[in-house]
Amino acid sequence: MHSSYDVIVVGAGHAGCEAAHAAATMGSKVLLITMNMQTIAQMSCNPAMGGVAKGQIVREIDALGGMSGIISDKSMIQFRMLNRSKGPAMWSPRCQSDRNLFAWEWRKTLESNSNIDFWQDTVQEVLVKDRHAIGVKTSLGITFTAKAVVLTNGTFLNGQMFIGEKVFGGGRTAERASTGLTEQLVTLGFEAGRMKTGTPPRVDGRSLTYDAMEEQPGDESPGKFSYLNTPVLSKQRSCWITYTSDDVHDILRTGFEKSPMFTGRIKGLGPRYCPSIEDKINRFADKDRHQIFVEPEGWDTVEVYVNGFSTSLPENVQYDALRRIPGFENVRMFRPGYAVEYDYFPPTQLKHTLETQLINNLFFAGQINGTTGYEEAACQGLIAGINAHRVINEQENFVIKRSEAYMGVLVDDLITKGTEEPYRMFTSRAEYRTLLRQDNADLRLTEKGYEIGLASPERYEKMQQKRDNIAALLSTVKSVKLKPEDINSWLSEKGSAVIREKASLYSIVKRPEIDQHDVQYLLSTVSASSDISKEVLEQAVIEIKYEDYIGREKLNAEKLNRLEELEINQAFDYDRLKALSFEGREKLKRLKPATIGQASRISGVSPSDISILLVYMGR
Amino acid sequence: MHSSYDVIVVGAGHAGCEAAHAAATMGSKVLLITMNMQTIAQMSCNPAMGGVAKGQIVREIDALGGMSGIISDKSMIQFRMLNRSKGPAMWSPRCQSDRNLFAWEWRKTLESNSNIDFWQDTVQEVLVKDRHAIGVKTSLGITFTAKAVVLTNGTFLNGQMFIGEKVFGGGRTAERASTGLTEQLVTLGFEAGRMKTGTPPRVDGRSLTYDAMEEQPGDESPGKFSYLNTPVLSKQRSCWITYTSDDVHDILRTGFEKSPMFTGRIKGLGPRYCPSIEDKINRFADKDRHQIFVEPEGWDTVEVYVNGFSTSLPENVQYDALRRIPGFENVRMFRPGYAVEYDYFPPTQLKHTLETQLINNLFFAGQINGTTGYEEAACQGLIAGINAHRVINEQENFVIKRSEAYMGVLVDDLITKGTEEPYRMFTSRAEYRTLLRQDNADLRLTEKGYEIGLASPERYEKMQQKRDNIAALLSTVKSVKLKPEDINSWLSEKGSAVIREKASLYSIVKRPEIDQHDVQYLLSTVSASSDISKEVLEQAVIEIKYEDYIGREKLNAEKLNRLEELEINQAFDYDRLKALSFEGREKLKRLKPATIGQASRISGVSPSDISILLVYMGR
Repeated sequence: MHSSYDVIVVGAGHAGCEAAHAAATMGSKVLLITMNMQTIAQMSCNPAMGGVAKGQIVREIDALGGMSGIISDKSMIQFRMLNRSKGPAMWSPRCQSDRNLFAWEWRKTLESNSNIDFWQDTVQEVLVKDRHAIGVKTSLGITFTAKAVVLTNGTFLNGQMFIGEKVFGGGRTAERASTGLTEQLVTLGFEAGRMKTGTPPRVDGRSLTYDAMEEQPGDESPGKFSYLNTPVLSKQRSCWITYTSDDVHDILRTGFEKSPMFTGRIKGLGPRYCPSIEDKINRFADKDRHQIFVEPEGWDTVEVYVNGFSTSLPENVQYDALRRIPGFENVRMFRPGYAVEYDYFPPTQLKHTLETQLINNLFFAGQINGTTGYEEAACQGLIAGINAHRVINEQENFVIKRSEAYMGVLVDDLITKGTEEPYRMFTSRAEYRTLLRQDNADLRLTEKGYEIGLASPERYEKMQQKRDNIAALLSTVKSVKLKPEDINSWLSEKGSAVIREKASLYSIVKRPEIDQHDVQYLLSTVSASSDISKEVLEQAVIEIKYEDYIGREKLNAEKLNRLEELEINQAFDYDRLKALSFEGREKLKRLKPATIGQASRISGVSPSDISILLVYMGR
Repeated sequence: MHSSYDVIVVGAGHAGCEAAHAAATMGSKVLLITMNMQTIAQMSCNPAMGGVAKGQIVREIDALGGMSGIISDKSMIQFRMLNRSKGPAMWSPRCQSDRNLFAWEWRKTLESNSNIDFWQDTVQEVLVKDRHAIGVKTSLGITFTAKAVVLTNGTFLNGQMFIGEKVFGGGRTAERASTGLTEQLVTLGFEAGRMKTGTPPRVDGRSLTYDAMEEQPGDESPGKFSYLNTPVLSKQRSCWITYTSDDVHDILRTGFEKSPMFTGRIKGLGPRYCPSIEDKINRFADKDRHQIFVEPEGWDTVEVYVNGFSTSLPENVQYDALRRIPGFENVRMFRPGYAVEYDYFPPTQLKHTLETQLINNLFFAGQINGTTGYEEAACQGLIAGINAHRVINEQENFVIKRSEAYMGVLVDDLITKGTEEPYRMFTSRAEYRTLLRQDNADLRLTEKGYEIGLASPERYEKMQQKRDNIAALLSTVKSVKLKPEDINSWLSEKGSAVIREKASLYSIVKRPEIDQHDVQYLLSTVSASSDISKEVLEQAVIEIKYEDYIGREKLNAEKLNRLEELEINQAFDYDRLKALSFEGREKLKRLKPATIGQASRISGVSPSDISILLVYMGR
């Protein structure tokens, strides 16, 4: 009935939208299949993008030519740069989003791409021929053929929602689950598991007493995610902070005997770092309070998201407990929180392109791989979409290194270590986090995005201009000499040591007490600050101040990358190496790492196992 | 767990939204329960409001203080006054809507009403005590108590969707059905039935060739629905017209053997006047083409609604047939059309307030009563919401007469005649349609709306001002005399007969060839046109030109209203009147009409039965 496609993307959440956009922008004819065209790019959980490590990922997606950054910029209602007080590696952009606007901006973006077609239906089967994906079959019995298929099914595969002792089939509240697909993939040889996630109650903002809470406004001068010229907020909506208490915890405990988590009715593991409130009071029994972020759902709605209060306890327990939280005394709920359990496929079954090892041209992205988070899903979608396009055009794999981006860390972690619980990104997962900053994602990735035909020429030129400007500024800073008589009184005022003889501007910039504004002033004294953008100045100052760290990490990364890339023959017989640990050998045999780098990150493979391998390989 | 409410409204479609808004505005504490807060006020079918007779209803809703008119004005993308070439009784406003904007404007309106709370859940039981509704119980097992309950369940009660031979449970595509409630109502003694409706495929506007179709732009000077100062469109989007053909019909016929309509799998009757395309080619086999309206779904989406092509034939048949329609040669479908079958409750079980006869303080509104159409649903919601508020405050029933509004016709038709198929409003259903015009709904109804506390004082003053201005203008027109020397050359130019002696402006206005613009000109010649609004002028001209019709209808209406209101004792023993026809007696016994007027409109009750009744009652 329908024409054939290059790439079929199943699911239109964060992963599916990025996958469809990327493949289509690079030139593939894409069919995006969604259960409901009215719910494209729904933010199923909290109305926010970014955050620690996650904000870096959004910037990376943007640098490569993905859309999550641009769409976040167009739909945000508040922006904050988190961790400003820490080193620049920790600075993390985060925004609150208008939930409806976010979804609508995505839909407009996809509709405006002439390479993307849409079909509303549920996929029940991946069509496979000679171990290659060649299309899908839907619940309407329709067959669509394609050269590659990307599955981004989120929490919908055999999804079941729990509230107290009640269970409902469904992938999201009031939406149906997707059945049949897991079973088919298992018959193809895939291993499947169950995971769990949850969401807090939504409440009526009109019923809250904000005086009793702490206001959390946006940044005074708000930033944004995209490196392109997206709009900057001129007004913002505040969030509010409040806290649970022993009282609240006591009430919550009264529901534990009906909790689907504690009674064993939910089998899947939930996200350790985004736990339900019952998990928190259980695991951290000594903590007498937990923080609650009260987040508005958009510019002009009274609906409010109670971040930090994810729960699947019975709804009357949720309600009673909420009412003991300062500011929530008269709260009216719109709907209770719930947990959702769904099928995932352990990601060790994937290649670094997110193509499955079992079936060629079949890609998995997002929660189906056992991750949690919009940003984690979106970047997987991007990687899968790019590689789906490339594999059918017989182009090389597009793989990002751990030293190049959080996206590289994420994919490599998933593929080599797998995950037993929903995987979330943290800065601590990255070995080279001084390199992987939010300010330099364009310098790290835009050239790559441009080379594969995803980042636009405009984006590429903008990045080059910035790179040149930084280089020019660094060279200025290094060449300018300051005289004691010109600068000492200013230095004294700043509480910085005076200089005895001429000193380079460079040496002054390195001083910890000298900040970006001071550098701007110093540059103005030598008439060199006229055309320097904030971005360029920030980059240059970071480069100078953190030169040593950055240099060391770069060196380590290069050294490790050489080993990283040392390939291991896929037919290698680990049984021949008697010296390997038992667990290490088993894992190596099962996961078949492609390189020493991958082998080294497999849990259970010890450093001595790696040494043994290297000796054998002549290193 | 939750506080008690005055009124609980179940369902947040057109009926539920109007019901909640009306009751809350009048002062009731309202809980609006919806299965999904993301789909409040979804336009499930075509993206349009108004049309012949339906546009009048939207104006009536607005005149009373309902919101459908204001929200339509805020979300429209095109406006047309239909039937401009016919008499003013036939003029009917209609707009194309931005589907998302319409829903969002409703949500904002409801959220901004401090008397409305929200709860997301599915109602499974109406709580009843001593034959009074006292609350509801939801699928989460939660009990909410209230003094009155309004059910507006749309197509969700045991909803089943059909596409060819496939059947899916659900009330709307990708949304779950509501189960359990029908069964409970039946155990309470209600009679339930099945009805059917359908929707056409949605297609990708980018795949259509508009050159091959006829453009249907909006009016050059677009009107609007509300009598208040809502915005007027400054730009509009066009619709397009194309046609089916024998070729298209032949293809559609190939699917008949798999049609759920023709194979008997759908038992419910569908809307006769909004039939599926397969119905049309079946019933009108001699017609070689049917009109198709190609309607954009909003300002900035490529999704297009194929109005006139509602179908539940197999999706490949839909697709193959669509492609033979001029302009659709390369069409890409987003999703196929489908039929939906659902439970309804024959509306003869209701009172004129839409309260059920069986259970006090329980109201039904919308498709649950066997109607079709957004406007029909909305006005029932309004009536039910108003009366729910009034019954719990021990105020008189709010009932609108057939001579006062289409809304009155609709409710009276439903209650006294029932309906075997989805009931749709037509101008032909109204006996007094020269009175029930779109231009005078405010004069007919705003005072009533104001008296019950629904229409705002501003609205009431605006109407009074208009009424006064019309009266003043009529008096001017009647008093002004025109001289032959001043006017005859102008009359000749117009092709209108010259006058021999002084004539009243009034007599000139009555001439059919003199239109509103001419009247404005004539008024200007006597310096009387300065402050006259278009609305006032239009009304006055209609009043003058159609004076005789209007007078006659008013007289008839008054005469009939006297009989109309002649009450029949509810305990009246029809068996005593041997002269009644068999069918008439049975119907009268079953339906227990409250007045002679109602009795006269029961199908099966003949004029001679009415005469017999009147004789018995001493008339």
